[in-house]
Parts: sequence; structure tokens; C-alpha cells
Amino acid sequence: MQTPAYAAQSASSPLAPITIARREPGPTDVAIDILYCGVCHSDLHTARGEWAGVQFPCVPGHEIVGRVTAVGSGVTKVKPGQLVGVGCMVDSCRTCPSCRAGLEQYCVSDTGFTATYNGYAKGGGENTFGGYSGHIVVDEFFVLTVGHDESELAAVAPLLCAGVTTWSPLRHWKVGPGKKVGVVGIGGLGHMGVKLAHALGAYVVAFTTSPGKTEAAKALGADEVVVSRHPEEMATHAGTFDFILNTVAAPHDLDAFLALLKLDGTMTLVGVPSEPHPSPSAANLIFGRRSLAGSLIGGIAETQEMLDFCARHGITADIEMIEMDQINAAYDRMLKSDVKYRFVIDMATL
Amino acid sequence: MQTPAYAAQSASSPLAPITIARREPGPTDVAIDILYCGVCHSDLHTARGEWAGVQFPCVPGHEIVGRVTAVGSGVTKVKPGQLVGVGCMVDSCRTCPSCRAGLEQYCVSDTGFTATYNGYAKGGGENTFGGYSGHIVVDEFFVLTVGHDESELAAVAPLLCAGVTTWSPLRHWKVGPGKKVGVVGIGGLGHMGVKLAHALGAYVVAFTTSPGKTEAAKALGADEVVVSRHPEEMATHAGTFDFILNTVAAPHDLDAFLALLKLDGTMTLVGVPSEPHPSPSAANLIFGRRSLAGSLIGGIAETQEMLDFCARHGITADIEMIEMDQINAAYDRMLKSDVKYRFVIDMATL
Repeated sequence: MQTPAYAAQSASSPLAPITIARREPGPTDVAIDILYCGVCHSDLHTARGEWAGVQFPCVPGHEIVGRVTAVGSGVTKVKPGQLVGVGCMVDSCRTCPSCRAGLEQYCVSDTGFTATYNGYAKGGGENTFGGYSGHIVVDEFFVLTVGHDESELAAVAPLLCAGVTTWSPLRHWKVGPGKKVGVVGIGGLGHMGVKLAHALGAYVVAFTTSPGKTEAAKALGADEVVVSRHPEEMATHAGTFDFILNTVAAPHDLDAFLALLKLDGTMTLVGVPSEPHPSPSAANLIFGRRSLAGSLIGGIAETQEMLDFCARHGITADIEMIEMDQINAAYDRMLKSDVKYRFVIDMATL
Repeated sequence: MQTPAYAAQSASSPLAPITIARREPGPTDVAIDILYCGVCHSDLHTARGEWAGVQFPCVPGHEIVGRVTAVGSGVTKVKPGQLVGVGCMVDSCRTCPSCRAGLEQYCVSDTGFTATYNGYAKGGGENTFGGYSGHIVVDEFFVLTVGHDESELAAVAPLLCAGVTTWSPLRHWKVGPGKKVGVVGIGGLGHMGVKLAHALGAYVVAFTTSPGKTEAAKALGADEVVVSRHPEEMATHAGTFDFILNTVAAPHDLDAFLALLKLDGTMTLVGVPSEPHPSPSAANLIFGRRSLAGSLIGGIAETQEMLDFCARHGITADIEMIEMDQINAAYDRMLKSDVKYRFVIDMATL
């Protein structure tokens, strides 16, 4: 089956129209008409060949929502007509300890999980093409159901990556009532982190380098906003945080935040910087038994849990809708953090 | 009360005899004749003024074992004649959340815990003098009871710092049967880490840079010994460790060890390097939800737990006994790692 898409033909070429093939749905496959696709920073890194191992043409997009058009004979999870989502993964080994624990993102098979785009290679299979396209075919195991109202669907798309990437560590480190939680960086990921931590009942402090973002962060659900470039503001929070979710991928001083953790507190990184962060101080970890951790997207079960939680609590991403042919301009704006807080492509414009 | 001791009079002077005063025992105090004192790397750092805030004269020593000579009227924990130990702390606020949790080493009062030596300053009190001395007076709360046979007493001394510094993280991160545990560095701390992790029932892998240490590490209880400078040896252990205790304070590549942790594994640092370690890779934390943590000595309750465990299991440190006037030469040998694995001063030679 042929479907229109937008692809980078090389690391140096802008995204442009292409036609790609999708497989015929097998017994456990779900065929989906893509209605909206969120624009993640990973899309840009991959399309521009900034990460190793990109195979071109590259069709990015892993914040996919759409409608089921057909299902294989063995599919029980969804029916034609239903609204569904697809996130960062379209397959994994399903037998390793991580997969059996519902943490497919940490699949330890030789090939790891199969990414929704640029997911070829390790298994020797064909490349995968993502959500900047009209149609996709995905095994039902990796298809999520969407309980939001259809009118909210575009703003649901970013939940599939930005949402679960922040949800998974918030849940793993038991964020909830009585916990003081920091969210560093108020962008695509951070704005979801603030919303989710707030909805989970925590006391939420947003950290930003921009004094101008204070009101906006409070509107997202932050109880307090701290300008991380003001040392005296930071000092008032020393040793008080149970957990800090750090969404900033640009290299920055981790010690400034580690010092804010209380005994046994953890700061978790979800962004991979292009250059290493300055080395954190061992003393900052030792005096306080603190942890610096990392977390990668989220498993399928927890993605569904997050989507259901968001539907119940009326949570979506704050988005700016774009047309497909605006994607290259959107990338340039994203590099300048000029988006509140996530671009979503209206696939009707493809 | 006057007692002989060995002190550094300045950062540049060798340790030499001095006479110091100990307070008269108050109602909750225990007076102790010091029989043996272990030699910790911290002693050297402090005596040579390599850490900030050293007040001279400095009498080091926080691996103290001895015999009770007198007790205050309110003391219930010990009696005259009993064998006891004193570790890194001689007081703390006892009311903050850390102290109430039995984790006095993380006391968050303004003055923190009072270190056994060089523990003045923050509270504005007099300086404290450590175990390179004939006698010490300590509040009973910070006095540990020793269940070992008296013949083992010298080799018990290093348990008070090296022992509990490795015991506390091994227990906190739930090392035991079914767990694969690494110990990086086979020195004063590391040799205790191997012994304790082995006695706790874990599968223990010792990491050393010296191929010559293999048999010695196995004798301590290591199931396997890996030469960390051999990448191909390291690679065979990728993604397999539940926990790694890293005792090496010299700056080194943490990523080589982080990559060996399995999903949700933790590597805990117990040494503060003089210069930062090379910055660990965020990706190494993110892909595997790994943690890099720190741990500081141990609380009083867990120190007693460790001493009792060691008495039951016949565990002591491997030591080389020295006389008091050999201390400066011992420091020089310690800097060359020329000791298996801990010097202990026979205080009868003072």
C-alpha cells in the first residue's frame, strides 16, 4: 500500500514530499489513517543526521494519533473507526526480562526495540517510516487507545512521546501527594512534566532560565517558578526536593539542581545532550545519598496508563498546529525554543 | 584530663607527639582507653590540609577501638571494662529528620554531625581530636559495642569507617542472595566491600586495575575478578550488574562501569575525588534507567548492625599493624597503595 509522506532525503536536505509503502496488515496488525502527528526534537536530530546511524530517506514522527481503518483477523484490542495512538516504538522482542516487565523501551534483545522511524538496522529488517505520513500499519500490541474527545485529538498527539517520557519517571520515582517535585526546562517535555506532576498531586516547582516564563509555568500547574540563573533563588530550595525531572538536553550545570535534593532524592535526566554535561560533583551525591538517574520514554502499558489518566483529568499538550509544508520552518523555530509547547502537524494538509 | 596524642601542627608538618585535653565525662559520656586506631585516607587528607577548613593542630583517627574506663551516671549502653568502638562521628543534632531516621551522617542541622576529628567549626565549639591518642571521651550514643574476641580487636578498628562506609550502601541498595554486585577498587574500603557483599550472599565481582590482585581479591571473597583496563573483559559483563560499589576516589571513567549495570541498576560512589571524574554519559543513564549515586559512611544504628554482623560471621579487616611513630611513613606508603589493606596503629606504642 502506497501512502504520501514527508521525508529527508539526506542530512542536508529539507523535508519534502515522498511516497512510501506500508505493508499489508497481517493477522495482528492495525491499519491507521494518521490524523495528527506531533513534532519532537528527536525528529529534527534524526532528519538532519545529527545522531549516528540514520538511514535515508527518513520519515520522522512518533507522536501519532489517528483512526483505525482495518484490523487483522487476530486483533482484539481495537476496531475500525476507533481513535488510537502510536508512540516511539512499533515492535520489540517481547520475551526479554524488560519486555516481560512491560518496559519494552529497555528491550535487551540484540536488536532492542524497533523505533517508529529509523528503526531498521539492528534486526536487518527494512527501515521504518514514522508519522509524517498518511497511513501506518502497526502490530496491535504497540497501538494505544485514546479516550479523549475527538475534538482534543491533535493535542493528544504529543502525549505519545513528550507525555510518556515525563510520566514514566514521575511514576517510577513515586511522585504524588506530599512530594516536592522539580521540573527543569519548560518546553515540549517540561510543560507535560509540570502538568502531570501537578495532576499526580505533587507540589511542583518549575525551573526555567527565562524570567518571562513564570506566569506561563504557573498556568501549566507549577506551584512555584524558580529562575535557575538566580543563585539566591536556588539556594532557598537547597536540600528540599524529593525528585527533580530534568528535561534539558543542552549541557548545563547539574550540581545546581543536585544540591536541591533532600536525603535520598533523585534527579532524572530524560534528554541526551550532544556534548556531555559538566561533570557533576561526587560530593553532591555522597553528602545526601542522592542519585542522578536517567529514563527513556515509557513502556506500552504505562503509555496506556498515562493516556487513560490524561483522559480522566482532561490533560492534553499545549500545541501550535501547523500544516505539513511548514515543517522545515517549524524545525527552525523549535531550535529557537519558539513554540508553546509542541508543534502538531495536521495530516489533512499532507 | 591530659592525654598523649600525635598531631599535625600545620599542613606541611609531619605528625608528631603532642599532649591534648579531653573533657571530664558528663552524665552520658563514656571514657575510653584507645587500644588501636585504623589509618584512613581521610586522616592523610585532613592532616595535610588537602581538604578545606582544617584547623591545626589536627589529631586524626576515626577508626577507634578500646576499653571503657569510666562512664557517666546516666550511661546505660556500656560498662567499664567493656570493648567498644568509635567511628567518624561523636555527635549530631539528634532531632532533624536524618538523625531521627538513624542516619546521623546526613544530619541536616546547621552544624551537621560533629566529626571525630576536625569536627569543630560549624557549631562554634572547640575542635575535636581523633583516635591517634591515648584516651577519648564520647557520648554513649556514639559509642559502639564490639562483640569480637579481644584477640581480633586491632582488625576490628577499620570496620568503624571502612566497614560501615561499604556496609551502608550494600544494605541500602539491598545487596544479598541472587544479586550480582561489583566492587571497584580493592583497597581499604574495597576489600571490606568484597568481604561484606560476599557474606551478605551476593555474587561478587571485584574490579581492579592490577592483574596481580586477582588471587588476593578471590581470597577476600570475590567470585570473579575483572581487570578494568581490559575492555574485552569488561564487555562480557555489560548490562548484568544489580549494583556496583565504587570505592575509587581517583578520577576515572565512570561510564565503563555504568555500562555494566542492568535495568534499574545503581553504581554508588563512596570516595570524593580531588578533581571531578570525567563526566558520565547521560545516555548511559537513560538507556537502562540506571542511577549514579553517592553514600557517606553510615549511621550509628547501622554501624552497630555491621559490627554485630561481622562478629557473627568472623569478619575483620586485613591489616598491617604499625607503631605510632611509623605514621608518617605509613602515609607515604598509603599514597602508593602499598598496604594490604589497612594500617592500624597499636596505641600501646604511643
